[in-house]
Amino acid sequence: VEFDGPCMKTEVPGPRSKVTQWINVNFFCDYEESKGNYLVDVDGNRMLDVYTQIASIPIGYNHPALTKVMTDPKNMGTFVNRPALGMMPPEQFSEKLVNGLMAVAPKGFSRVQTMACGSCSNENAYKAIFIWYRVRAGVLSFFFQVPGCPDLTLLSFMGGFHGRTLGCLATTHTKAIQKLDVPSFDWPIAPFPQLRYPLDQFERENAREEARCLEEAEDLIVKWNQKGRHVAGVVIEPIQAEGGDNHASFDFYRKLRGITKKHGCAFLVDEVQTGGGSTGKFWAHAHWGLDDPADIVSFSKKMLTGGYYQKDSFQPDKPFRIFNTWLGDHTKNLLLTEVIKVIKTENLLDQAKRSGKVMLEGLYDLQDKYPHLLSKARGIGTFCAIDVKDEDTRNLLLLKARNKGVVLGGCGTQSIRFRPALVFKEHHAHLFLDIFNDAIAEL
Amino acid sequence: VEFDGPCMKTEVPGPRSKVTQWINVNFFCDYEESKGNYLVDVDGNRMLDVYTQIASIPIGYNHPALTKVMTDPKNMGTFVNRPALGMMPPEQFSEKLVNGLMAVAPKGFSRVQTMACGSCSNENAYKAIFIWYRVRAGVLSFFFQVPGCPDLTLLSFMGGFHGRTLGCLATTHTKAIQKLDVPSFDWPIAPFPQLRYPLDQFERENAREEARCLEEAEDLIVKWNQKGRHVAGVVIEPIQAEGGDNHASFDFYRKLRGITKKHGCAFLVDEVQTGGGSTGKFWAHAHWGLDDPADIVSFSKKMLTGGYYQKDSFQPDKPFRIFNTWLGDHTKNLLLTEVIKVIKTENLLDQAKRSGKVMLEGLYDLQDKYPHLLSKARGIGTFCAIDVKDEDTRNLLLLKARNKGVVLGGCGTQSIRFRPALVFKEHHAHLFLDIFNDAIAEL
Ligand code: FES
Repeated sequence: VEFDGPCMKTEVPGPRSKVTQWINVNFFCDYEESKGNYLVDVDGNRMLDVYTQIASIPIGYNHPALTKVMTDPKNMGTFVNRPALGMMPPEQFSEKLVNGLMAVAPKGFSRVQTMACGSCSNENAYKAIFIWYRVRAGVLSFFFQVPGCPDLTLLSFMGGFHGRTLGCLATTHTKAIQKLDVPSFDWPIAPFPQLRYPLDQFERENAREEARCLEEAEDLIVKWNQKGRHVAGVVIEPIQAEGGDNHASFDFYRKLRGITKKHGCAFLVDEVQTGGGSTGKFWAHAHWGLDDPADIVSFSKKMLTGGYYQKDSFQPDKPFRIFNTWLGDHTKNLLLTEVIKVIKTENLLDQAKRSGKVMLEGLYDLQDKYPHLLSKARGIGTFCAIDVKDEDTRNLLLLKARNKGVVLGGCGTQSIRFRPALVFKEHHAHLFLDIFNDAIAEL
Repeated sequence: VEFDGPCMKTEVPGPRSKVTQWINVNFFCDYEESKGNYLVDVDGNRMLDVYTQIASIPIGYNHPALTKVMTDPKNMGTFVNRPALGMMPPEQFSEKLVNGLMAVAPKGFSRVQTMACGSCSNENAYKAIFIWYRVRAGVLSFFFQVPGCPDLTLLSFMGGFHGRTLGCLATTHTKAIQKLDVPSFDWPIAPFPQLRYPLDQFERENAREEARCLEEAEDLIVKWNQKGRHVAGVVIEPIQAEGGDNHASFDFYRKLRGITKKHGCAFLVDEVQTGGGSTGKFWAHAHWGLDDPADIVSFSKKMLTGGYYQKDSFQPDKPFRIFNTWLGDHTKNLLLTEVIKVIKTENLLDQAKRSGKVMLEGLYDLQDKYPHLLSKARGIGTFCAIDVKDEDTRNLLLLKARNKGVVLGGCGTQSIRFRPALVFKEHHAHLFLDIFNDAIAEL
């Protein structure tokens, strides 16, 4: 049974967390004691977790189904011997892919390439796109052509986040500090629509803004192609998460997909943060209502492993073009298979829709109640966010909420993102809204 | 108790492995049945493993010390809940670092940054170097300076391998197919000494070749600095592993270190493949005999986790400059702590020296016996290699050895690399040499 609410003993970070001087560390946790939606820290503070390790815990802490995987002796060999999955996979590898990643493959995909985190997922997806573009373009790629590094580019969007390794970082445009001092690729960057919320109340105005951004994106593709620096692909998140939970309409994405088709660019949907069910569908881009919404879909975080789904034509033509030592971590595939079973048997996608409805309605109420402080409540499923009047107030609110027993995270310059696990139920949403309300009232 | 030798039932890949059409896959394994130095495949073939999942299994398969970690209930929370280590680490995190990674830190290092694989280790080490170079250079790095991507470079060596993500790939120069079609950075590449083996018989000649390469490296640094594309760092492996097990003298590395100091470049030693003990010292660069051999040392593979040791001055000046969701995987730290204990209690560094001596002497004998087929036997500890007369013969020899019960891997164009686990004893070396001799005799 889960705890029935937060229970705070000290300020957070408490005395036992404060012993560290480590940069970035918020507090130390007791992961044995944490359970379901509740994260317990080393000072015994028990907090409702609406951030879940940067949106990466799928079904709460210490779910019994996962504990069972760990204690099953027949999984021992997998946990103590890490295979080079690309060369010598374990016997159960294909079965786990079929019951795991392929069981939840987005419509239209019959192939998956496992990786270990969001960064290597995107880095390798980018490589797959470049290779595909050159092969498809009919350019003769001789094996011994050295260096054979063409001047191809990827188009990304302002406010997008796709990781921090050098390839990913070239397409990441959230905070300046992330890119400062690091050499980058000169690739085209399109504006992402700056919309008014709630989206359905500002449809006409938002449609104009989206049209402007689509036109600019298409212009960039045409111009960069003309100057010989061909745009091999376009990479975008279904909701810009790190960048501030920026939404665009499903129509925007459908049209963008059309533009990529028209100009022969691959369309890569980065579902690292949005994937895994919290929008009420397993993949956020499934909301767009297209049969064929993408060429590649990358994932990680709540999927526990990393990787990407790809259309058949993106499978490299020769061995070892997409490769590394481990190519993922099979222990995460074992756990993911159970997570997917739990999502199905506990009907957690519907749960995310129901809890999300409570969340979003509660957020609308709060911004009505505190219009000078809060604005732009938005979300799909439990993947919700709200803006605070400025960065300092946002940060203060995060701390106040934490000391009242709710763990939250910021995104963008002044947003708070809500990222509960899929086991977050309506009563957790109500509990969260009550505490959040108390914290706001103290501002 | 370990098996007493290989036991082959079919050719490899056998009928059960052949069901897959997956590119790159050699055969499927039964990791429950594998033990110590023996890898068992799905057809029940038991093979002496001298490749160890591309040099990544430290103390053999299913070592009881690792099984114990897995069955200890107090570790359960770590295995089923993956923390965002940079923000909310588990209570035991610092202790595991102290008893794990810091207990084997190379001389002169008091800081470690964990990562999850060799690629993110190097990508982030590169970023740490660029940040350090700009801060040290006294360039004003304003927070809001956009894009703030200076034209800094890293110098790497022909034949070097540092990973396949886009930043790493810019410094990787082994096989053309790895870089083909993928955009890259234009950074300086120095020649790596092409030496004659055994090194001690060709000292004068080799010294000339090394002097030439050092001069070229220094010239490149001076020239690139002059044209404003400053060389922030130099990255090199203690033995070029993927590139063909190319060695250089300890003196070469000492002089290279001097050149980096002289020109203000960071010196990054990539120990992803060489680190972890197989050279008879925990770190291969410890053989060089310098007090202060490096600024950053990256690792992964046999270390189970990834990461890098860094001098204090490479710690970024602001939070979130080096960051990602997981920043490693604490389950690997738990296992590594046990691995390190086993290495100490079983005295496995000395074991690697003794087994390596048997290996290398055996390889010398074989190349004397088959001078038309084999050459350049070389190695430190068990980290050994030999060249075969051409690529086709090398590949044939790998298959023949495998069908006789020894798993081996190639590197470079015509080399075979030997990468046994640290539990590889003298009698395993003798057994390997006998089988390898039989395989060669069949050519
Ligand atoms: S880059 Fe993904 S685990 Fe290292």
